[in-house]
Amino acid sequence: MPSTEPPTEPSSADSGLLSPGRAGSAAEEATSDAAYVRGMLDAEAALTRAQAALGLAPASAAAAVTAAAADSARYGVRDLALRARSGGNPVIPLVADLTAAVAERDPDAGAYVHRGATSQDILDTAAMLVAARALEPVLADLDGAAAGLALLAGQHRDTPMPGRTLTQHAVPTTFGLKAAGWRSLVLDARERLAAVRASLPAQLGGAAGTLAAFKAFAEADGTVLECDPGIRLLAAYAAETGLAEPALPWHTLRTPIADLAGALAFTAGALGKLATDVLLLSRTEIGELSEGTGGGSSAMPHKANPVRATLIAAAARQVPALASVLYGSLAAEDERPAGAWHAEWQPLREALRLVGGAARDAAELADGLRVHPHRMRDNLDATHGLIVSEHLAAAFTALIGRGEAKAALARATRRAVEEGLELDEALLEEPALSGVLPKERLRDLTDPVNYLGSAGELVDRALRRGTPFHPSGD
Amino acid sequence: MPSTEPPTEPSSADSGLLSPGRAGSAAEEATSDAAYVRGMLDAEAALTRAQAALGLAPASAAAAVTAAAADSARYGVRDLALRARSGGNPVIPLVADLTAAVAERDPDAGAYVHRGATSQDILDTAAMLVAARALEPVLADLDGAAAGLALLAGQHRDTPMPGRTLTQHAVPTTFGLKAAGWRSLVLDARERLAAVRASLPAQLGGAAGTLAAFKAFAEADGTVLECDPGIRLLAAYAAETGLAEPALPWHTLRTPIADLAGALAFTAGALGKLATDVLLLSRTEIGELSEGTGGGSSAMPHKANPVRATLIAAAARQVPALASVLYGSLAAEDERPAGAWHAEWQPLREALRLVGGAARDAAELADGLRVHPHRMRDNLDATHGLIVSEHLAAAFTALIGRGEAKAALARATRRAVEEGLELDEALLEEPALSGVLPKERLRDLTDPVNYLGSAGELVDRALRRGTPFHPSGD
Amino acid sequence: MPSTEPPTEPSSADSGLLSPGRAGSAAEEATSDAAYVRGMLDAEAALTRAQAALGLAPASAAAAVTAAAADSARYGVRDLALRARSGGNPVIPLVADLTAAVAERDPDAGAYVHRGATSQDILDTAAMLVAARALEPVLADLDGAAAGLALLAGQHRDTPMPGRTLTQHAVPTTFGLKAAGWRSLVLDARERLAAVRASLPAQLGGAAGTLAAFKAFAEADGTVLECDPGIRLLAAYAAETGLAEPALPWHTLRTPIADLAGALAFTAGALGKLATDVLLLSRTEIGELSEGTGGGSSAMPHKANPVRATLIAAAARQVPALASVLYGSLAAEDERPAGAWHAEWQPLREALRLVGGAARDAAELADGLRVHPHRMRDNLDATHGLIVSEHLAAAFTALIGRGEAKAALARATRRAVEEGLELDEALLEEPALSGVLPKERLRDLTDPVNYLGSAGELVDRALRRGTPFHPSGD
Amino acid sequence: MPSTEPPTEPSSADSGLLSPGRAGSAAEEATSDAAYVRGMLDAEAALTRAQAALGLAPASAAAAVTAAAADSARYGVRDLALRARSGGNPVIPLVADLTAAVAERDPDAGAYVHRGATSQDILDTAAMLVAARALEPVLADLDGAAAGLALLAGQHRDTPMPGRTLTQHAVPTTFGLKAAGWRSLVLDARERLAAVRASLPAQLGGAAGTLAAFKAFAEADGTVLECDPGIRLLAAYAAETGLAEPALPWHTLRTPIADLAGALAFTAGALGKLATDVLLLSRTEIGELSEGTGGGSSAMPHKANPVRATLIAAAARQVPALASVLYGSLAAEDERPAGAWHAEWQPLREALRLVGGAARDAAELADGLRVHPHRMRDNLDATHGLIVSEHLAAAFTALIGRGEAKAALARATRRAVEEGLELDEALLEEPALSGVLPKERLRDLTDPVNYLGSAGELVDRALRRGTPFHPSGD
Repeated sequence: MPSTEPPTEPSSADSGLLSPGRAGSAAEEATSDAAYVRGMLDAEAALTRAQAALGLAPASAAAAVTAAAADSARYGVRDLALRARSGGNPVIPLVADLTAAVAERDPDAGAYVHRGATSQDILDTAAMLVAARALEPVLADLDGAAAGLALLAGQHRDTPMPGRTLTQHAVPTTFGLKAAGWRSLVLDARERLAAVRASLPAQLGGAAGTLAAFKAFAEADGTVLECDPGIRLLAAYAAETGLAEPALPWHTLRTPIADLAGALAFTAGALGKLATDVLLLSRTEIGELSEGTGGGSSAMPHKANPVRATLIAAAARQVPALASVLYGSLAAEDERPAGAWHAEWQPLREALRLVGGAARDAAELADGLRVHPHRMRDNLDATHGLIVSEHLAAAFTALIGRGEAKAALARATRRAVEEGLELDEALLEEPALSGVLPKERLRDLTDPVNYLGSAGELVDRALRRGTPFHPSGD
Repeated sequence: MPSTEPPTEPSSADSGLLSPGRAGSAAEEATSDAAYVRGMLDAEAALTRAQAALGLAPASAAAAVTAAAADSARYGVRDLALRARSGGNPVIPLVADLTAAVAERDPDAGAYVHRGATSQDILDTAAMLVAARALEPVLADLDGAAAGLALLAGQHRDTPMPGRTLTQHAVPTTFGLKAAGWRSLVLDARERLAAVRASLPAQLGGAAGTLAAFKAFAEADGTVLECDPGIRLLAAYAAETGLAEPALPWHTLRTPIADLAGALAFTAGALGKLATDVLLLSRTEIGELSEGTGGGSSAMPHKANPVRATLIAAAARQVPALASVLYGSLAAEDERPAGAWHAEWQPLREALRLVGGAARDAAELADGLRVHPHRMRDNLDATHGLIVSEHLAAAFTALIGRGEAKAALARATRRAVEEGLELDEALLEEPALSGVLPKERLRDLTDPVNYLGSAGELVDRALRRGTPFHPSGD
Repeated sequence: MPSTEPPTEPSSADSGLLSPGRAGSAAEEATSDAAYVRGMLDAEAALTRAQAALGLAPASAAAAVTAAAADSARYGVRDLALRARSGGNPVIPLVADLTAAVAERDPDAGAYVHRGATSQDILDTAAMLVAARALEPVLADLDGAAAGLALLAGQHRDTPMPGRTLTQHAVPTTFGLKAAGWRSLVLDARERLAAVRASLPAQLGGAAGTLAAFKAFAEADGTVLECDPGIRLLAAYAAETGLAEPALPWHTLRTPIADLAGALAFTAGALGKLATDVLLLSRTEIGELSEGTGGGSSAMPHKANPVRATLIAAAARQVPALASVLYGSLAAEDERPAGAWHAEWQPLREALRLVGGAARDAAELADGLRVHPHRMRDNLDATHGLIVSEHLAAAFTALIGRGEAKAALARATRRAVEEGLELDEALLEEPALSGVLPKERLRDLTDPVNYLGSAGELVDRALRRGTPFHPSGD
Repeated sequence: MPSTEPPTEPSSADSGLLSPGRAGSAAEEATSDAAYVRGMLDAEAALTRAQAALGLAPASAAAAVTAAAADSARYGVRDLALRARSGGNPVIPLVADLTAAVAERDPDAGAYVHRGATSQDILDTAAMLVAARALEPVLADLDGAAAGLALLAGQHRDTPMPGRTLTQHAVPTTFGLKAAGWRSLVLDARERLAAVRASLPAQLGGAAGTLAAFKAFAEADGTVLECDPGIRLLAAYAAETGLAEPALPWHTLRTPIADLAGALAFTAGALGKLATDVLLLSRTEIGELSEGTGGGSSAMPHKANPVRATLIAAAARQVPALASVLYGSLAAEDERPAGAWHAEWQPLREALRLVGGAARDAAELADGLRVHPHRMRDNLDATHGLIVSEHLAAAFTALIGRGEAKAALARATRRAVEEGLELDEALLEEPALSGVLPKERLRDLTDPVNYLGSAGELVDRALRRGTPFHPSGD
């Protein structure tokens, strides 16, 4: 029976204490227990309305169920959670409570609650509604992050910084190219999430996916239908939920869950790349970036920690493992599996939340990121010119041949490192180059700014990629 | 500032709606947000008491902190969760609230709250306290499951049933041996969890694990100490928390977390074996087992679903992936990592809960499991005697040689399968065996009860393994 | 220096002994060490040809590199593997060997080997070539599996069998619907793999992704180019490899790897659903399906094991975890990561192989699957009519009201179970139904064949979905 | 039939090309296909010898099997791999080949090959032998790494360096403490691996784990045995293999595999911590560490890459996921599972190899690690004294009260940062401290060397932990 008291949460309720990444985010609220109850009630109401639309239930029943379902505060989540234990899913107690609430309004309508459906129809549909709703702020935050990164990429199209491979300085690159790369991953993630969101299907199949009960009720009621009532109901129900119509009931054809898993793991990883770079480039010794609002430390008040990047990085470590559980649940037996289905619920919710929090943090990070070009320049000079040795090798090879060029460069490099010289100074004293290369040309060659390759063109090219169509464009 | 209102949980709070496996369990409550707050407050109080014990803080401060920390209802978890976002962990706002609460009691004591510690000292210690407390009911439930399975193994020591390999009947076994095997896994899990639980250490290191601030405060206060105050404090603090003393601060030496990960994944998998077998043997066509209290179905009221086994199986699918995140966090950089630490919190809690729920379900399952020896016997006969063909092959080989035995058995098997005979009937008409084997001996050889090998002895042997020392009993 | 002896494999070489799922498959050969060497040599040759096409290298050099690269037997994989250890990747020693081989043919051409490239350009491009080549037989095998399943779905469109949920009989379904569902997952997998395959990009970026060395060589050589040589080379190189042109060098923008991870995990899981069902329905007691060619057992020669399904199920357990490693590597630092990149190589290869083997097994399984409709019918009757109780409830409700219907059905069900009656017999004696329902109508209602709902229509609908465009067909 | 030609490896053979971390390592060779064949042959020979020892087989048969099994080169791994496909495991074809080889030596002995056993007995025992053999060099390499790290910890007990939290300088620490921490993780890993290795059991159970066939053969042969022949054989067989005797056949009680999974994931993660730190501290801007022998770059010959750490880091990313597959296989159905067992083979082998390679790299890394104390000192000074602000806060608080101390420090910090002063200079001009703190005392307080807390004592304490008992030393 539904509680008539306002639900009071027990001491076992979680409020995000261990999840600062998502605490207070729109995605958190959209994936709460209350949001799942909301989704289940929406599914039940849609089912009765769809039946009414086909003449399989009276319009008054649809109205009563819709009204009773609208009052979601009536259904206490903790009470449902505890009663879910006996049958293994929360739909069973919710149907009991909803039936009672409907019967209060219209005694004849109670029989139409959940009529012909199975628990999984309702919980899977609710999960799709929750996912669709939770992804809306995620897509918006990814748009925000992409916009912030586009700005950075444009502003710093030609800002030189060290390119680093295997932790070591390699050759110069630009911060613009780095930011354009981050943005391209964010756009890739956005495309994948938006495509999955647009395809999320309603679920309806009845006890074992044949839609048999709907036909049986229609026959028993003597309802005359032109074509198969199950198939027609599938379409009507999907339309009522606002979700896509599935080709088949997908109780154990878990494509929608697996597609969500992949897109969420992708997004967490894509944002993880951004976070990983920000964390490295914010290190005290590197100092090329800092977060707009660094988190304080309880022990060291002067520290400005890269908290946004930290929380994103934490999400990126978790979501791939959660996705592996969801991919594993594809191998679901029979018409409803004993375990594989139940193992999806919490990992899917947690993945949505972690990605929701990470997207919010990424948007804030991109928006507030402070770039320090002078530190980039200092760091470019930290190896005394060695960062352009590839450039020099190319130039010298054309002048004095490959072997000589390599030897001359090696000698000068060794002197520069051992004697603490700038590489250009060492090269000026290099006999093999004497008279071959004017001093000014050498200075040009050793300036990192002159060895940025196609970085600028690549930034331009990357920025021409527009923000994709926004399927939640309402 | 601490809330003075009773905390009201927001709509974003979770109450276990998607986790029927653990809803209402002792492990759930022991791992709630409130339990973590409790653990953090216990850690803070222990720290001040330990400092007081060494003369590094006044006894009155220890009393004030202990008293203020005892009133955990004062600290609203949702409020803490939201304020945790800025610094990335919940200790920072909690310390602020605790300090205010202490200062209310004793204005001079506020300065001793969290003195010398870092957030990670408190949160890691809280996690160890939570784990230790959550494992207590888990160990008890594993004991319960082991006891139930021991009873079943003893009762059914000689109950024959089909042994199955790669889904097919192989040779007979006994239900006793199966139950004894399940129990041995439960005991293995129990040993691993109990060993980890007994070694869970307190965490104390200060800002970067050198315990420097404690020494600095001692020096600044002019406190005279015989030996290193940091090392002494480590021991005193551990003693106050009731946890083990660590050899080193383990901010980024995550052995305790990894050991928990392994023992929890082991336990989930061990219980998963029990669940997997129960699910198979409960299938409608097999019917050798049924759960004591089957869950109802919303669509088919006559069905009795193996819900306990289903929820255990769902847990077994999730915990290994969560453990992989925790093992991954071993590779934590520096003196506190930006992400690897934060990525541990929720997976560790979720693994504790899933295992807690699975252990409870396993205890109930073992306690109420109904065994159907007649169905086992029917199933043994389903292959018309083929299940003992290995027995026959051994016997015939000794009588008529390997080649002849093989050929005779193959002929009779073919006839039995094609003509729907019992294998012993077909063998009686087999010329190669004519006169070699008395009819009664043949009947004996084809009775599955006479081909149980060492099953009984193995059960006895397995049951001699006692329940290990119960570390939570002290 | 390249070996001139035919390479002899050492005792450490693996030949698939622990991987019967993929041993001897086309995907195995397409992903072998030799295939990776082939891919790396193809990448090097394509790079020089692309440079020659743009006037950045002499045509003779392109010819020499192409010729030397064609002789892949010259490059001993074990030798390369051992020499890879010092620099951490196999491109470094391969470039040395290739340069020597080119110089043998044309001393001037040696300088153009690998010119301007970095190891990752070559290894990433090779991985894409390997993936594209390995996916060709995978897609063909998925087509084969889908065709076999379409045939089964059509043949058994109306073959009734028990629908099962949470291991128990629920309501009837058809084998056609089950096979159509399997096929829909196979088609989903095929679409995802084909889409990824069509987008696999070449990789070119030079030392840190700016393409700087190519420009430097052009400048040093005095080559006049209308537009940016790096950008032009990117297009020319992609064209030479036959792969897609990337928008940006993707050294640390790992979208292609992550997309492969998702599609491979999806495919393994999708085939795992088929395998899981076949394994269950082949169990001795169920016997509704059997594999065309069952594997023998070393201990029990009479057993016919579902080996194809077993090996697919084994793959489905592994690939999601491998995919989680690949998704994890999205968070790759800098312009080339120290570890995240290296951690991709073996998991990607193994995932390709596991999926390749599973697709082959699925095609064989679908092709040879034997369906036993009489066993399905026997199993439908195993619950004495209870499998249609939902049907009866709907019919009775219309006749005598919901409450009465429920009570009457419950009474009859109890009698049927307790007294071993068929449900229709018990119902005939049920007073509440007396005179309400003619005997013939009751017989019809209790026949599972009359409770298949929309199964047939759903099969038709599913089979209308065509095999998608075959991108490897062009 | 066994090949009489020397086995030639096909082009599909792998030689470690994509696994530079383990190429050429002892662990690689110990886990090769050939090593598994060796293990299976050892298991078969042990089984016949054990039977002979109990009078269940003639001594001549034991001798013939042992001799035929010794010639492992006779058995071509590729041939076995291909023939394994039909039955799904390599034991089936190997038994055929071994039987033929035995019969060549002694026609009567053929019947005793594999007598009473099942494939899983042989393959599981082989896996344990392979694991035990592969772990020997791993343990030795961990000992080497621990010794190298102990040396570093001792040498640098008092070498100050920045302690870093969330990427930022926090307070000073010592390199000795860092190295001691790494060593403690290595010792933890060593203990876990050694404990698992010492407990690895032989596997023997026959077709379904009841040891029935052994009893049947004994009965058929008329052998008189005092006690249960299965149980006795279990002990004798274990003794012959050198492995531990299991309490029960463990075909689906996978404790040994799960324990290996945990210990291997732990070890990979523990070494991953070392690698992660080395990679960070080797970064160009930080420069506190460098690998003894840096790997070259194909594009930039001057670069010295931290290749050993890179390859360890790559292993640490993979093993937890492989372990999750192995933990997942605990939930194995029946007496032999269809998939869960097969899914263990390759992940276990790969985990052993990755850990084997990582241990070798760790030993080399620890041995050759170059420490740069002057860079550590430079980095300590990079924040102009802010790294000791915690020290100053403690001291000032004692002198001028908490509020004043905090304000004074904040003012001076701001000035230091904004005006580029050293913090002690700014403090000297701070009015609140004027006359309170002598200049020399301030200099002392701001010297990082004077804020190392208990680091030295912690190093001493950690180094007192000895190398544990070496179980492979026998």
